[in-house]
Amino acid sequence: MNLPPPIYKIIQQLEKLPSIGPRQAMRLAFYLIAQGQNEIKSFAQDLNSLLSVKNCAQCFFVHQNPDNLCDICGNKSRKKELIAVLEKETDLISIERTKKFHGRYFILGPIAKTGILEEWQKLRLQNLKSFIQKELNGQAEEIILAFSPTANGDFNVSLLIKELAPLAKKISRLGRGLPTGGEIEFADDETLGEALNNRG
Amino acid sequence: MNLPPPIYKIIQQLEKLPSIGPRQAMRLAFYLIAQGQNEIKSFAQDLNSLLSVKNCAQCFFVHQNPDNLCDICGNKSRKKELIAVLEKETDLISIERTKKFHGRYFILGPIAKTGILEEWQKLRLQNLKSFIQKELNGQAEEIILAFSPTANGDFNVSLLIKELAPLAKKISRLGRGLPTGGEIEFADDETLGEALNNRG
Repeated sequence: MNLPPPIYKIIQQLEKLPSIGPRQAMRLAFYLIAQGQNEIKSFAQDLNSLLSVKNCAQCFFVHQNPDNLCDICGNKSRKKELIAVLEKETDLISIERTKKFHGRYFILGPIAKTGILEEWQKLRLQNLKSFIQKELNGQAEEIILAFSPTANGDFNVSLLIKELAPLAKKISRLGRGLPTGGEIEFADDETLGEALNNRG
Repeated sequence: MNLPPPIYKIIQQLEKLPSIGPRQAMRLAFYLIAQGQNEIKSFAQDLNSLLSVKNCAQCFFVHQNPDNLCDICGNKSRKKELIAVLEKETDLISIERTKKFHGRYFILGPIAKTGILEEWQKLRLQNLKSFIQKELNGQAEEIILAFSPTANGDFNVSLLIKELAPLAKKISRLGRGLPTGGEIEFADDETLGEALNNRG
């Protein structure tokens, strides 16, 4: 049987989204239709209003400011010589929520499993280098490689360290140990070992 | 920290979709932004083109025909005196795929856990009754209550049977038994019992 072509199109759009499979995409398509014309129009409008969101020229986070800088990079009270390098915007949001970081960010984008950077990621890195050159006389105080402590994250850090070492006096990572609320009994050996190493 | 308002709006839209939680909605929002302007525009366009999809006046399935009937209800070779009552469009698609059903359908929409029909569902049922009155002289040959054989589906069937019994010579349900490829050893007691009852 053939469904109306607009339904196939919207299923294709939904399938492209990460973690949404073909069955769920079809279910979502019929859900959207059932919501009625007004709901569909408002969803389309809200999508179109995403077009006004820009990427910061320095850290590549999202913003809608008239100039090219996001709220964080445009904030003079944030230390520009302390830079957290991140894979994702959502990681930045999580770190901001702690209210414990007063430096700047740099979003490199998710790194492929191969560890090979895409062209646009190389351009972003180039951007970071020229920022450090121009604004920090060639060296940041500290670059925090704020990648998740997974096998993949560790691999990416090992690749980036070479690239970034000349750009900062200190390269660091997020601390490892027991998560708050975690029980020693249930911690894996690696985590418990790190907790011993980083005791204090 | 504050994100640009269009991002919050699109997160809200995505959160409304079934099986998408707030974290995934945020991840999807940033994914969409990362796809760039053209992708976002085409998604919005495809959403808007959903507005041309209509519901069949008889069975409430989707269509884009110039009149009010879907391809199935408009197909004279399909038996109108045999009606499968369904909860969802995707159930209709699954049954059509078998190519073993040559009757018509009637989509009642997902029934709430309470078993109480929404106003629009009552209107749809009214519609089915007047169709049977006008086109089938008050009685269909058979109505198949094609609900999933779950506790909830069984409950809904028990409620609908009273309502629909006067409208058809026969009321049936989908057959129960072992699914093709299923092993006897792993079948639950209920399923195996049904398989024994329905042997043939």
